[in-house]
Amino acid sequence: MKIEKGQKLLFIGDSITDCERARPIGEGLFGANGKGYVALVDALLQSVYPELGIRVVNMGISGNTVRDLKARWQSDVVDQKPDWLSVMIGINDVWRQFDTPFIPDGHVYIDEYEATMRELIFATKPTVKGLVLMTPFYIESNPDDAMRRAMDEYGTVVRRIAGEHGLLFVDTQKAFNQVLKELYSATLAWDRVHPTQTGHMVLARAFLKAVGFDWSRP
Amino acid sequence: MKIEKGQKLLFIGDSITDCERARPIGEGLFGANGKGYVALVDALLQSVYPELGIRVVNMGISGNTVRDLKARWQSDVVDQKPDWLSVMIGINDVWRQFDTPFIPDGHVYIDEYEATMRELIFATKPTVKGLVLMTPFYIESNPDDAMRRAMDEYGTVVRRIAGEHGLLFVDTQKAFNQVLKELYSATLAWDRVHPTQTGHMVLARAFLKAVGFDWSRP
Amino acid sequence: MKIEKGQKLLFIGDSITDCERARPIGEGLFGANGKGYVALVDALLQSVYPELGIRVVNMGISGNTVRDLKARWQSDVVDQKPDWLSVMIGINDVWRQFDTPFIPDGHVYIDEYEATMRELIFATKPTVKGLVLMTPFYIESNPDDAMRRAMDEYGTVVRRIAGEHGLLFVDTQKAFNQVLKELYSATLAWDRVHPTQTGHMVLARAFLKAVGFDWSRP
Amino acid sequence: MKIEKGQKLLFIGDSITDCERARPIGEGLFGANGKGYVALVDALLQSVYPELGIRVVNMGISGNTVRDLKARWQSDVVDQKPDWLSVMIGINDVWRQFDTPFIPDGHVYIDEYEATMRELIFATKPTVKGLVLMTPFYIESNPDDAMRRAMDEYGTVVRRIAGEHGLLFVDTQKAFNQVLKELYSATLAWDRVHPTQTGHMVLARAFLKAVGFDWSRP
Amino acid sequence: MKIEKGQKLLFIGDSITDCERARPIGEGLFGANGKGYVALVDALLQSVYPELGIRVVNMGISGNTVRDLKARWQSDVVDQKPDWLSVMIGINDVWRQFDTPFIPDGHVYIDEYEATMRELIFATKPTVKGLVLMTPFYIESNPDDAMRRAMDEYGTVVRRIAGEHGLLFVDTQKAFNQVLKELYSATLAWDRVHPTQTGHMVLARAFLKAVGFDWSRP
Amino acid sequence: MKIEKGQKLLFIGDSITDCERARPIGEGLFGANGKGYVALVDALLQSVYPELGIRVVNMGISGNTVRDLKARWQSDVVDQKPDWLSVMIGINDVWRQFDTPFIPDGHVYIDEYEATMRELIFATKPTVKGLVLMTPFYIESNPDDAMRRAMDEYGTVVRRIAGEHGLLFVDTQKAFNQVLKELYSATLAWDRVHPTQTGHMVLARAFLKAVGFDWSRP
Amino acid sequence: MKIEKGQKLLFIGDSITDCERARPIGEGLFGANGKGYVALVDALLQSVYPELGIRVVNMGISGNTVRDLKARWQSDVVDQKPDWLSVMIGINDVWRQFDTPFIPDGHVYIDEYEATMRELIFATKPTVKGLVLMTPFYIESNPDDAMRRAMDEYGTVVRRIAGEHGLLFVDTQKAFNQVLKELYSATLAWDRVHPTQTGHMVLARAFLKAVGFDWSRP
Amino acid sequence: MKIEKGQKLLFIGDSITDCERARPIGEGLFGANGKGYVALVDALLQSVYPELGIRVVNMGISGNTVRDLKARWQSDVVDQKPDWLSVMIGINDVWRQFDTPFIPDGHVYIDEYEATMRELIFATKPTVKGLVLMTPFYIESNPDDAMRRAMDEYGTVVRRIAGEHGLLFVDTQKAFNQVLKELYSATLAWDRVHPTQTGHMVLARAFLKAVGFDWSRP
Repeated sequence: MKIEKGQKLLFIGDSITDCERARPIGEGLFGANGKGYVALVDALLQSVYPELGIRVVNMGISGNTVRDLKARWQSDVVDQKPDWLSVMIGINDVWRQFDTPFIPDGHVYIDEYEATMRELIFATKPTVKGLVLMTPFYIESNPDDAMRRAMDEYGTVVRRIAGEHGLLFVDTQKAFNQVLKELYSATLAWDRVHPTQTGHMVLARAFLKAVGFDWSRP
Repeated sequence: MKIEKGQKLLFIGDSITDCERARPIGEGLFGANGKGYVALVDALLQSVYPELGIRVVNMGISGNTVRDLKARWQSDVVDQKPDWLSVMIGINDVWRQFDTPFIPDGHVYIDEYEATMRELIFATKPTVKGLVLMTPFYIESNPDDAMRRAMDEYGTVVRRIAGEHGLLFVDTQKAFNQVLKELYSATLAWDRVHPTQTGHMVLARAFLKAVGFDWSRP
Repeated sequence: MKIEKGQKLLFIGDSITDCERARPIGEGLFGANGKGYVALVDALLQSVYPELGIRVVNMGISGNTVRDLKARWQSDVVDQKPDWLSVMIGINDVWRQFDTPFIPDGHVYIDEYEATMRELIFATKPTVKGLVLMTPFYIESNPDDAMRRAMDEYGTVVRRIAGEHGLLFVDTQKAFNQVLKELYSATLAWDRVHPTQTGHMVLARAFLKAVGFDWSRP
Repeated sequence: MKIEKGQKLLFIGDSITDCERARPIGEGLFGANGKGYVALVDALLQSVYPELGIRVVNMGISGNTVRDLKARWQSDVVDQKPDWLSVMIGINDVWRQFDTPFIPDGHVYIDEYEATMRELIFATKPTVKGLVLMTPFYIESNPDDAMRRAMDEYGTVVRRIAGEHGLLFVDTQKAFNQVLKELYSATLAWDRVHPTQTGHMVLARAFLKAVGFDWSRP
Repeated sequence: MKIEKGQKLLFIGDSITDCERARPIGEGLFGANGKGYVALVDALLQSVYPELGIRVVNMGISGNTVRDLKARWQSDVVDQKPDWLSVMIGINDVWRQFDTPFIPDGHVYIDEYEATMRELIFATKPTVKGLVLMTPFYIESNPDDAMRRAMDEYGTVVRRIAGEHGLLFVDTQKAFNQVLKELYSATLAWDRVHPTQTGHMVLARAFLKAVGFDWSRP
Repeated sequence: MKIEKGQKLLFIGDSITDCERARPIGEGLFGANGKGYVALVDALLQSVYPELGIRVVNMGISGNTVRDLKARWQSDVVDQKPDWLSVMIGINDVWRQFDTPFIPDGHVYIDEYEATMRELIFATKPTVKGLVLMTPFYIESNPDDAMRRAMDEYGTVVRRIAGEHGLLFVDTQKAFNQVLKELYSATLAWDRVHPTQTGHMVLARAFLKAVGFDWSRP
Repeated sequence: MKIEKGQKLLFIGDSITDCERARPIGEGLFGANGKGYVALVDALLQSVYPELGIRVVNMGISGNTVRDLKARWQSDVVDQKPDWLSVMIGINDVWRQFDTPFIPDGHVYIDEYEATMRELIFATKPTVKGLVLMTPFYIESNPDDAMRRAMDEYGTVVRRIAGEHGLLFVDTQKAFNQVLKELYSATLAWDRVHPTQTGHMVLARAFLKAVGFDWSRP
Repeated sequence: MKIEKGQKLLFIGDSITDCERARPIGEGLFGANGKGYVALVDALLQSVYPELGIRVVNMGISGNTVRDLKARWQSDVVDQKPDWLSVMIGINDVWRQFDTPFIPDGHVYIDEYEATMRELIFATKPTVKGLVLMTPFYIESNPDDAMRRAMDEYGTVVRRIAGEHGLLFVDTQKAFNQVLKELYSATLAWDRVHPTQTGHMVLARAFLKAVGFDWSRP
């Protein structure tokens, strides 16, 4: 298990991360970590490794793109002084190109996406003990679907940056693809984006595998 | 224009038809026809052919399958004594097979679908002056998508029944396909089923073309 | 069809335009264009001309007079950089003279109306590719009704300005008059001002005729 | 003053009478008489003639026609054993013919109106000490307006029945006409039917004049 | 009738005046004058003297004492430029001494009351065409009741100031006393302060008598 | 202390007893005993005599008269099998005669009050171990006030019945009178009926004195 | 993994099971399985074993004791025809003895508990393919706490019955005890009964271990 | 009785004190003192000593620690100029160490607690006529429970400071312990912190004993 006793683990991202977390800081009792994969990661860490006392903080905000993350990076990441940081962003960067194609103001194209991600990761890496990059995803089994294809390209950017910096990498699309072999996408998310509890468990499990979590410990 | 002065035109179907219509009867002022294609058809008929005084009635109920239609056919169709009847059903019959595949109670397979449709149409045709069959649809451009393929098969059943009885036939899937050449499905419906106003206008226009509506009359 | 590929079409006006549009900018998914004629124009443009990708923006605000439009013209029109602009204002300018006759603060008399309209149109015309002026209206069939007569005079001002500048002109009163020959005003609007869906379709159709929209294209 | 000490005065009618009165019986404290002319009559009687202790009961129901009154006459009039009865009905009988002309189910034409009124009045007159008939009204100054003309005809029926039975008669249309000489209809009612407080005071004053109320007594 | 054509009549006071009036200015349609005596005065003036077009404005605020009136006199009275002004204040000045006797911060004793009233009236009288002073009241028939006795003393102050300046004077306590001979106080106000509609009509009638209103004009 | 270990103590009455108690049975956690004197008695018994485990049940219903108690006596008293019963009723029996004097249906005059009380007490006394009669009260210091005088007469009935049967008797009016020497009635209840927490403590203390409660035990 | 392809797994119990599940049947999309351990079991089964298509149904009802389960066993267990059944009941049976000790009606003592459990299990075992008994629990680390001690005795009953019938047995108290070594009870449940997400994950993991679930499968 | 005529008694603390008191100042009618022990103290003082007119003010704020008290001491204590001050704080200082052990930001350890208490009491003592220190408490009967043990230590700090300054001291833990001998903690507070009405009465009685309150005075 890579995360150590007493460390603070902060998740940043969009609505998949947010899931009705508490404001301004998503941590503590009464569902402060929201209802998504962050809450599941928290529950799994606390129940299986109660002696570690890992402090999970959720700073996701619905609708965010990487451009929005940059705007609030200082207050919502740097100032929080996390030991571990997990970043999952990009779904809205792509989605807006497909659901409101005539409103370019909301589109974040791949060059801006890559440059901003690099900038944020480069600046933050020295300050944290662990950094996890999770790809954006699209719960669609057809790799030739136009939006799935675009999302895969953004995922490739994430993989490349993780590789260059030697960061932990979570391929969420691959995790979903495995389930999509058995289940039609509508079972996991009516809009192919916002997962059911099952979909969030797919994300939580993919994250935890990357950090060496062991479910079967006594 | 095939619908004549003073005739009553009744729409029956599922949530695409329902769209928050008034209960128990969906007709009259204050949005009683709901917010979907039925309301658009009503507005187009009233504004372009005000002298005809066509009475539009919406009897859609969200979540319905053809099995549900059969159960309420007497009270919601026959007893209403429509001159014209339009039927669009089948989306939920198919969808439940894909979004809750482990709960077969909610699935209506194609044999039951065809038999029930035949039974209802056969019984009703002699009592009305006009009968329009609209196919179910799936706002997905990939014809090899599993759920789209199933929906196309249900649509083929509708086409066949319309052909056998010489009924007016509206191929809603074809109407959507034409738009999907230009727009990604997420622009028209986040869940590929419940359309935006644009999607409802596609349906209204397809219906009105079938009944000889002329937008450009003075 | 006069509006071209990728152009932005902005509507400004009062509650007839507003109709619960999104704030601060009325554009995008989830009914952001409101529930009135603007949403119908948007749905008709997107469904019949999906390849054009016309961007429809609704900036109506309920209760506005031309005096209010002037106060927010910079932020709500100029700064939005529309290619096409449609203006329909004047109903409240007249109505307040009739429903609260003892409160002159809210009355905008015809001289101020004309001067302000001229000022706004004169300043804006050079910056847009198309400009549509729609008259205010009153859904009352009696041309001798006091408020109808006043509204007609304001409409005449709009017609005159459109003529002088060679702008597209939409006579909404005339469009309603045609329907009022067949239907009593209460069918179209309980207060003779806020139309039902049918009334909004009358407005949408009148607008679209002016810009060369062709419903019957394949 | 015709109403005597301790008598019960019951008003029956439609939404103009109802005005959010208490259910099932509209009498007592806490606004139980609603917010319309009945409450004003009650307040004027109690404040000017406190020694009479007249018991005012409101049995109006919104949307009612004379057909609805007949259906509930036994429980809502006869069983209440009023000493005085005031009836004002007919607006919806006429209105439905004009706002939903294609739905004849809701129309109550003049023959049914007259016959039902006669039947109810004939049966009730012997059981009460006083009976007041108030005409329906339409707050429209143009006597040639189609709906105003129809309403006047229904009013004529009321006048005729009152005359034949020697009942107290209140010409509410005439009372409104006098005010409409000075004020445009929109000042009194946005939909020309549901009055403002001023409009309700016109009704209360017309009623009270008929029963001999004297405002200026010490 | 002392108030003339086109004049603005402003009422200032406490919760008896306020009664849910519109903010920030209590005038116009949709019950903007509240539900109390001000709305009744407005309805009576408009219905009986429609040709005068008197503009009624309600600036009451619940809980106010004369100390509060002074604090907002400039914005809520002077800046509104009324032709006529009616003032009814003092109930809370007295009531707080009786319902929260241990919290002297909220008590306004009679010296401060008189001095403040004098100051406000003296400054305002030259700027208006008519000024009406209404006493505070307590709906309690026993003149020896401690709070009634105190209220009577404040009323005496109002009478004295009115006499000295030759202002119109309305003795609301006397008006209520007349009704209290017939009705127990609980019929008019559960808390002996906030009147029912009947109690508000007592106030409206007392006010209107003072300004020469004639109910019986044709 | 007269109430013994494990006994059930049931209170029946009107809104003074009810005070938002739980339905259908007012006992248990989460404020089930309401917010009035019953809850205070319960809290005092549990905190001072925790070893007795007295079970307090609140069966008050707002608006009740003795006539209403009779109608529900079987289900709400007898079927509950209390060891101790406390009855406080009569306020509404009197109040309705004063706040709605023209609606005799709601008045319960003193003969009916006495006869019904006798009937209920006579039938119930043999079935319980203790019976407490509390007078109705009116928080008005003037014994010549009309409603206070009437309430005192009803209280005298209660005293007489208690005396005849040798029941515990609580003179709530006397308890309030003692406080009213120091405080004006508005401090204890705005409507002279529904007490503040202080007024409910007056009731709780008067009750507890009657049953031998000792606050100062260690 | 003991549960096989296509089998239906039904959970019955109290509020720990219920957790806002859908009514009348807790299964399907949109959080129909509630927010507790049942939803977590469902999400873990679907995400790790998507090919099995296990149908999870939640029939918990808040506040239930074993007496309540018996009353609805036919409709909520037998009629649902589960392949696997999991039962966790007893917390309220014990809790009511401690939080409302004076209201014995709600207490289910250990003899009734054991007899009823035996009766239900005996009748149901032959009809299902798998049966899991989960103990009730109390999130209190002190085994000498009075309520913890009682809960342990009820848990012993469950263990005994499971042993006698050879059923799968889940010792939830033991699972919580392991976490309570590291965390104070308030971290897991403010009232020591209703767990946080972490506490529900403790339950889900304990259940899944019993049925052979393997988190680490590829 | 130590508190004298006309003195102001202010309570400051956390949610136990707050209990939905009015903002910004908790005093006056309509439950302004909240629903907890402060309201009970107020009701007992007013009902038993009405002639003293003691002014009770509640300045508790939910969630507060002694650190929060310090931050608002000037505005919420000093500026209110109380004659008597009662302080009960410390529950949250301890609780956060146990319910969110991984979030040290919210923990107030015993050294900071003691230093801050000393600072506040030292500064305030000269300005008031009476000062009461109430210990924090934990409604748990086991003195070896980890959180109970910690709370006892904070209570010892309070006792020590009271002793050094010769202040009135209320041992709330001891008061609860006496009741806990008879009742299980869940009867008094589901979370062992927020008391039922019974628990608040325990607090009120403990406070009143300290100030010499005599329940049995006539």
